Amino acid sequence: MGTRDRIVAAADQVINELGLVRATTREIARAAGCSEALLYKHFSRKEDLFLAVLLERMPALTPAVTRLSGQVGFATVAENLEEFARAAIAFYRRSLPLSAGLLAERSLLEGFRAMLAETGGGPHLPIMMLGTYLRDEQKIGRVGADADPDAAAALLMGACFHRAVLAALVDLGPDDKAPGFVATLMAGLGPR
Amino acid sequence: MGTRDRIVAAADQVINELGLVRATTREIARAAGCSEALLYKHFSRKEDLFLAVLLERMPALTPAVTRLSGQVGFATVAENLEEFARAAIAFYRRSLPLSAGLLAERSLLEGFRAMLAETGGGPHLPIMMLGTYLRDEQKIGRVGADADPDAAAALLMGACFHRAVLAALVDLGPDDKAPGFVATLMAGLGPR
Repeated sequence: MGTRDRIVAAADQVINELGLVRATTREIARAAGCSEALLYKHFSRKEDLFLAVLLERMPALTPAVTRLSGQVGFATVAENLEEFARAAIAFYRRSLPLSAGLLAERSLLEGFRAMLAETGGGPHLPIMMLGTYLRDEQKIGRVGADADPDAAAALLMGACFHRAVLAALVDLGPDDKAPGFVATLMAGLGPR
Repeated sequence: MGTRDRIVAAADQVINELGLVRATTREIARAAGCSEALLYKHFSRKEDLFLAVLLERMPALTPAVTRLSGQVGFATVAENLEEFARAAIAFYRRSLPLSAGLLAERSLLEGFRAMLAETGGGPHLPIMMLGTYLRDEQKIGRVGADADPDAAAALLMGACFHRAVLAALVDLGPDDKAPGFVATLMAGLGPR
């Protein structure tokens, strides 16, 4: 493992042990067995290091989005969404200490917000990509012509994210919510 | 305003200014113009004080849930859900500094989790109550007989919560997402 990867792995570990607020560059450098100066050579801003942890160390959401985009016309839409929803819940649970920390500390939040504005990235992108998948399925008639793919994507991702947050606060049992979310999203609430 | 209410108002203000992690009882007592000893007389645990801020100082979710339960059979289900979704987004945005802080700091999270387990409360209750509203509408035929009220409630509340989080991180514009969430939830995604 190169120095850069060792620093990212150490940051991941320290965030999970101490929480983001206490994950100082000093602690991270110590866990990585390098100097703070070397850490700063690889990551000039703390925000860059935290983004690297999110993108490189988490059971990734990006591969799940990529896989989904290859599933247009294959299996069923519900099956594809269920697999994706499970990956999303796992990602959100795993990344919660990091994302909560970013939101909780004003200076970190402002730094992260500025970085996202600069790079055009952000946590809304997976929702947009899920919306694109649903729009592609709509084009081939596997999603209703009058459905709103972006709103549907926001509902499913929101439920997955919220589930991860609730599970951190209350004991909800290990039940798999993905099938219920997806079935309800597919069928709707309206009377028939 | 009595001492207790002054302490709760001061805690709200300090959390919004400094973030939860830096909102020490010392800072809060200073902002309330009282001693730390007096603060601890009213709130023996920091968690109790933070819960009081959530319940008493936020544009409340509880009144919105209560209002909703009185709307069974009145207006349309979509109108009732839209009004509720707007209140939920406002609540989640306003309470984000507090809820993110609770999730970010391991010791606070463990204290809060223990308190919720003891009192039976928690952030899942509004979802359960929204599910009850939808089940009541289902009984009178305004929600489809085969719909899953609890999954629908989790989807809508999740989208509102996620929206509040995304808005803290990226500039999404001031657009009102509630109608789109609700219309999609009512109509479903399936091809007709």
